[in-house]
Amino acid sequence: MAKLSFEFPDGNKKEFDSGVTAEDIAKSISVSLAKKAVAAKLDGKMIDLMQPLDQGGKIDIITSGSDESLQILRQGAAQLLETAVKEKYHDIRIGEISADKDGFFVDTDKEDRQVSSDELEELASKMKKIIKNNATVNRVYLSKDDALKEVDGDPYQAKLIAKIDSDNILFYSIDGVKTLAQGVVAPSLKDLKHFKLLSVAGAYWEGKSSNPMLQRIYGTAFFKADALDEDLKHRKEAKERDHRVIGNNLDLFFVDPKVGAGLPYWMPKGATIRRTIERYITDKEIAHGYQHVYTPVLANLDLYKQSGHWDHYRDDMFPPMKMDDDEMLELRPMNCPSHIQIYNHHIRSYKELPLRIAELGMMHRYEKSGALSGLQRVREMTLNDGHTFVAPDQIQEEFKKILNLMMEVYHDFDINNYTFRLSYRDPKNTKKYFDDDAMWNKAQTMLKGAMDDLGLDYVEAEGEAAFYGPKLDVQTKTALGNEETLSTIQLDFMLPERFDLHYVGEDGKEHRPVMIHRGIVSTMERFTAYLIEMYKGAFPTWLAPDQIQIIPVSDDKHGDYARKLNEKFRALKLRSNVDERGEKMGYLIRDAQTKKIPYTIVVGDDEIKNNTVSVRKYGEDNSRDMSIDDFISEVLHDIATYSRNDDDDAKSKSVDKVK
Amino acid sequence: MAKLSFEFPDGNKKEFDSGVTAEDIAKSISVSLAKKAVAAKLDGKMIDLMQPLDQGGKIDIITSGSDESLQILRQGAAQLLETAVKEKYHDIRIGEISADKDGFFVDTDKEDRQVSSDELEELASKMKKIIKNNATVNRVYLSKDDALKEVDGDPYQAKLIAKIDSDNILFYSIDGVKTLAQGVVAPSLKDLKHFKLLSVAGAYWEGKSSNPMLQRIYGTAFFKADALDEDLKHRKEAKERDHRVIGNNLDLFFVDPKVGAGLPYWMPKGATIRRTIERYITDKEIAHGYQHVYTPVLANLDLYKQSGHWDHYRDDMFPPMKMDDDEMLELRPMNCPSHIQIYNHHIRSYKELPLRIAELGMMHRYEKSGALSGLQRVREMTLNDGHTFVAPDQIQEEFKKILNLMMEVYHDFDINNYTFRLSYRDPKNTKKYFDDDAMWNKAQTMLKGAMDDLGLDYVEAEGEAAFYGPKLDVQTKTALGNEETLSTIQLDFMLPERFDLHYVGEDGKEHRPVMIHRGIVSTMERFTAYLIEMYKGAFPTWLAPDQIQIIPVSDDKHGDYARKLNEKFRALKLRSNVDERGEKMGYLIRDAQTKKIPYTIVVGDDEIKNNTVSVRKYGEDNSRDMSIDDFISEVLHDIATYSRNDDDDAKSKSVDKVK
Repeated sequence: MAKLSFEFPDGNKKEFDSGVTAEDIAKSISVSLAKKAVAAKLDGKMIDLMQPLDQGGKIDIITSGSDESLQILRQGAAQLLETAVKEKYHDIRIGEISADKDGFFVDTDKEDRQVSSDELEELASKMKKIIKNNATVNRVYLSKDDALKEVDGDPYQAKLIAKIDSDNILFYSIDGVKTLAQGVVAPSLKDLKHFKLLSVAGAYWEGKSSNPMLQRIYGTAFFKADALDEDLKHRKEAKERDHRVIGNNLDLFFVDPKVGAGLPYWMPKGATIRRTIERYITDKEIAHGYQHVYTPVLANLDLYKQSGHWDHYRDDMFPPMKMDDDEMLELRPMNCPSHIQIYNHHIRSYKELPLRIAELGMMHRYEKSGALSGLQRVREMTLNDGHTFVAPDQIQEEFKKILNLMMEVYHDFDINNYTFRLSYRDPKNTKKYFDDDAMWNKAQTMLKGAMDDLGLDYVEAEGEAAFYGPKLDVQTKTALGNEETLSTIQLDFMLPERFDLHYVGEDGKEHRPVMIHRGIVSTMERFTAYLIEMYKGAFPTWLAPDQIQIIPVSDDKHGDYARKLNEKFRALKLRSNVDERGEKMGYLIRDAQTKKIPYTIVVGDDEIKNNTVSVRKYGEDNSRDMSIDDFISEVLHDIATYSRNDDDDAKSKSVDKVK
Repeated sequence: MAKLSFEFPDGNKKEFDSGVTAEDIAKSISVSLAKKAVAAKLDGKMIDLMQPLDQGGKIDIITSGSDESLQILRQGAAQLLETAVKEKYHDIRIGEISADKDGFFVDTDKEDRQVSSDELEELASKMKKIIKNNATVNRVYLSKDDALKEVDGDPYQAKLIAKIDSDNILFYSIDGVKTLAQGVVAPSLKDLKHFKLLSVAGAYWEGKSSNPMLQRIYGTAFFKADALDEDLKHRKEAKERDHRVIGNNLDLFFVDPKVGAGLPYWMPKGATIRRTIERYITDKEIAHGYQHVYTPVLANLDLYKQSGHWDHYRDDMFPPMKMDDDEMLELRPMNCPSHIQIYNHHIRSYKELPLRIAELGMMHRYEKSGALSGLQRVREMTLNDGHTFVAPDQIQEEFKKILNLMMEVYHDFDINNYTFRLSYRDPKNTKKYFDDDAMWNKAQTMLKGAMDDLGLDYVEAEGEAAFYGPKLDVQTKTALGNEETLSTIQLDFMLPERFDLHYVGEDGKEHRPVMIHRGIVSTMERFTAYLIEMYKGAFPTWLAPDQIQIIPVSDDKHGDYARKLNEKFRALKLRSNVDERGEKMGYLIRDAQTKKIPYTIVVGDDEIKNNTVSVRKYGEDNSRDMSIDDFISEVLHDIATYSRNDDDDAKSKSVDKVK
């Protein structure tokens, strides 16, 4: 029999007969290792412990508790879930099954009706029963023909089998049920004690929206109970903040992948929030000396060839449209070339600098469909974009002005949880960057100087600058834990060259300006997602889609008074409504709280008699009786000061910060 | 010799020898006819009088003074202008030359520099001299080879010659210069006394933006002096109102065909006007019960297949973009399907109707490049769009509500010059329309009833309705005399069917709503163009991009005071600036008037001492001294009442109309 040679991570080598399994190899080292082993890696490729080997190589035994063992555990959970699903529903088809750092899933498709979340408990019981009765996993090889017979006309399984480049198709047999191996599992399911089936959601077969939608059953699993508990707690918190969940509950927006993945529809309430943000930031920028413009979302592809986007950014761009006259039109991926068009429409003088052009600029980026998420990752977005054209010696002053604008905006939205990151070029590899040493040195010093002058904390990241200049990023985290850039200020030495920008200096000669790209509140989509998560849906009064909910004690007796009040509030441009459903008072008040409406007011006999309202603020337990005028003053003051409602998290906006 | 038979308009026939010319035929009828003849039509095709004919047919002699003779005259002017151009510039290339109902033009391309408008006078003199010396036009036939030699390497002429499907290429020889015949001319230029060269402007060779830009020399010509004078007067008036001219003078917007034909860039001042309109109409609609949304400009092509746009409207749509997953994405040509998505996102109850969805919805329409014009005809536009979903018996009431909204808006913008047109289906051909007789009859009666109830004048147009329902259009005219739709209200019975819309009625059953498409101020582009022309650029204070211009008598002595005032005004959100150029007072005041700024105020010693300002309103001849507070009150009142400035045309907004 042929001998195979294996090398261990410590460099030692050992020979075994062909047909040896990783389990045999583990045992040959120590019983305890074999006991803890769940899988192995052979030349970097994950294999299960049971596979008879016919080649040697570098071998690494994966033991329970290691990072990689979690994936093995979860793949086992997935195969087991598939087993349970097949046992429970005899007519079910199975698509992809998979495990990763977040958990595991099994895609299912039932003829008559789909698996619902109500059935998860029962499936979990079934899985537990199998583990208890017979936790062994057996490997079964079938020929392709037999494998196709085994899956009995399931088109998804058939397609998965067809893709396998071998006539030996591996199945794992659990509890007598064969499931196509779609990953590596441990020989026993005994470690699978701490798992949880989480949810069911639609997922397209092969991730393509043109394919049928399957039902994906999600779960997670851990080796230890406390790790599972911790994870479930995190999930619950993230879900409470998840802008997609809140966005759906509060009817703010939706995405319909059949009509367009990553193309959100803003429902009236979400649109009100967005419009309020748009007007706020536009007015704020105009007050800070910006000139707002509107520029087209389409341009000749040549513009993006000249800017360099087509060369360096093509993968993220939409396909160009070929028009008559052989014109190629492109949906813009960025607004910079549009603002350069504005700059270049006139001959500019040094007297006009810094020239600040801003826009709520719609752009299109072709994000991968897997990366799309609610309003956070979309394909059509409107950026709070601005470009300042400055003389080189104005960089520091303008950078400070932008920072001041940013801090004002953060204050108004009560944004506190962020970090500054200053990105320089790599001093060891300056050739990678736009070639102007003096400019880089000067600009980096100016940026750092401005941060220090303003007393702002920041981290410095060498080698993190863009090709075209140093930058400042403001980083934050989403509810799901992903790091995101909230604001950015980027110097650009390159585009002014590429578009041959100049201004006439005091000396009457032509000079090259520096361009500063800056976004304060990023895109309307991402910023709204961020705010939803930050406020947990409880928007401050100035942003809340509904600001006042008026509940008449009895519609017959107090409805007219409620409607008159409502008209009065609306005439002051307050977003007020009367709840005319006539349900029980307690229910209507709770409902207004569920909708996170800042002010709920109740009007009955007493209120009409005394010309008062009974006011309950969102997050407060008690009502207060107030005169109508006092109430209006309070609401208007709330709005004028951008103040947060009394929510648990909302204490951070201290009084001295309020203007 | 063969005989040819000709039939005259009165039915008489006559025979002539082959080789006869139309001139000979005219002479054979009467000397006076031959004298007035300028060209002829043979079987409907225009021919010149000098062409030897080898086929008979229906013949019609064109005499001077007839409508068609004007084109002959102007084609002669074009060939003569080409002659003069060739005599003046020996290195010039000639593109298209043409005549139509507006005048004539010659496209030119010079190696070193282009023909400028300064040279038009000299060219006109040359033309006059040729007419005086030798007004005869001779026909010269050249073989294709000789024709190419004649044009001596001119690539445009060579291409025009290559396209002619004959080896006999006709040239007209005038003053010894041969010009390629690009139309039909009279044998003599003696009638060409009253012509005018008007302007020079860039025009792409063959109308394609990928081709070189030539210089197009425009002119016009008439048989009589008073007709020319009248035309020139009209042109001057139209030019004074032309939104493209004013838009350029006031720096409101520009279009750069190299970057995208029909894709305007709104400069800061134009953007301010647009933003003001957008906020105005959004707030107005919300106050009228509309719910504003944002929906994506892209959607899966299937959506427009379902709506029927792809079948019936494809020529006006941009080409679809093919994405991964074989998804076809389309830039929307209309917003209706997007709002249907909003409607269909929830199950709707009769209690929610009328449900009013509105949006500033960006759309893309692929207009022919020849039809594009400034902001009036564009390819990317943002429509003040709205869709109301009603129960059938709510049609009349909702139609009235929309009309009331429309009249409020017209009042605020001081729009008075329009007509209502009510379009019904053709009662003789009801099969052409959506099939629901009862619905049509009911709806048409309701629309008419609403107009009558409101006491509005209208014309009724049978057979002018859309396939899917009756409509009301509000028609107006542009400065250039083109009729345009300002607002529209269209009932739609079809889309609710196609998208299977319903609402749950009081009876608990599903019912089909009717959809009303309505646009009040049309697109931001077209409406701004309309307002520019209506106001001749003198925007009322609330819309004016700059509202106040402050001129210090001496910047040294009064500049600081001026800047303090400016801050005060800006804090009130007034659009105010200080003119710091230090030019002469008279010049700066005139300049502010040229820019049509509503308020120009001058501050000097007296004003500082007395705490006053010297105010000059746009269109007024004199200044008034006012206290600062009074001035602010006046401006704020102007804005709040949307009042027009005292311009010649602006008296129409009578006091009783002002709220």
